[in-house]
Amino acid sequence: MSTTEAEQPQYWYGAEKQALLGRLRRIEGQVRGVHRMVEEDTYCIDVLTQISAATKALQAVALGLLEGHIAHCVVEAGRTGDPTAKVKAASDAIARLVRS
Amino acid sequence: MSTTEAEQPQYWYGAEKQALLGRLRRIEGQVRGVHRMVEEDTYCIDVLTQISAATKALQAVALGLLEGHIAHCVVEAGRTGDPTAKVKAASDAIARLVRS
Amino acid sequence: MSTTEAEQPQYWYGAEKQALLGRLRRIEGQVRGVHRMVEEDTYCIDVLTQISAATKALQAVALGLLEGHIAHCVVEAGRTGDPTAKVKAASDAIARLVRS
Amino acid sequence: MSTTEAEQPQYWYGAEKQALLGRLRRIEGQVRGVHRMVEEDTYCIDVLTQISAATKALQAVALGLLEGHIAHCVVEAGRTGDPTAKVKAASDAIARLVRS
Repeated sequence: MSTTEAEQPQYWYGAEKQALLGRLRRIEGQVRGVHRMVEEDTYCIDVLTQISAATKALQAVALGLLEGHIAHCVVEAGRTGDPTAKVKAASDAIARLVRS
Repeated sequence: MSTTEAEQPQYWYGAEKQALLGRLRRIEGQVRGVHRMVEEDTYCIDVLTQISAATKALQAVALGLLEGHIAHCVVEAGRTGDPTAKVKAASDAIARLVRS
Repeated sequence: MSTTEAEQPQYWYGAEKQALLGRLRRIEGQVRGVHRMVEEDTYCIDVLTQISAATKALQAVALGLLEGHIAHCVVEAGRTGDPTAKVKAASDAIARLVRS
Repeated sequence: MSTTEAEQPQYWYGAEKQALLGRLRRIEGQVRGVHRMVEEDTYCIDVLTQISAATKALQAVALGLLEGHIAHCVVEAGRTGDPTAKVKAASDAIARLVRS
């Protein structure tokens, strides 16, 4: 995080912050569930199903954050100056998400 | 998990079980870290980087489980009878993983 | 494509259009190469390697188009009015890409 | 492709070869369609939708090839000797697919 970015108030979480935190808490529980399944020697295919569910849930959170970044950070930067850095940050994050 | 599958001893975790549990414990910590970042209003792009890291780590665990399933469950089923169900389970799990 | 979108000149391809067309032509050749490999009974794992290369190349084109959409369509809509529809279009396209 | 692999008749395509070739021919057409869309300055989001469709179709072909590799190459290797190399090839191909 650059100083410039740190100086920008991250106002856009406001409305969605509690929902986001709730979803992350549930994903933490899902991962703990996968741990327990392995500990109890659960059939590997059933463990894989749970891992896919956790991965999907993480990606849904990521998609929400990306939409917020585009709707708030990119649009705001475009309105007040040069959005290039925010667009590049969005684009790099999308590439990481697609490849993860 | 079908009864038939439950009856099969899930022997193949043996050697890798502790490593697997350690990796899942670390991923749980990564997700908790993401939760803390959102709580502290961290810049969304930095949160996204952490989510990609957790997703990648989950997929690495999934790839290891899939390799174990193919090397042990599928091969064993092929040696002792009809491997069709184990192959189908592998194939469905790969499809879920690719789409998650 | 809605009428409104059709009415907007798609100006932003301009600079990158020839490069984009060249990449798509190469991907078409890659897919034709995969077809030839199957026709000649090439070992399935080698066919898979070529398919992964073609898929990666298609995703690279998609990432470039998304960056263009955000940098041009979204930013422009934010400067001249309500960017909500363009943000939503970006977000849906990212979701399709992540899940494909 | 190693010499050993080249020496193995790739018998398993037999039944599915024509269907596989038909699907690849259609994907080649889809990519050509994407090329035409860019040439005609189609709205970028609509181009992205077509790219996602082509990517999904390529991945479906890849999933079919992987299932065939596991059902035939891996199982056969397990029945007649050491399947380690075939399992490793499957696992590497899955990893490439998940990350592409």
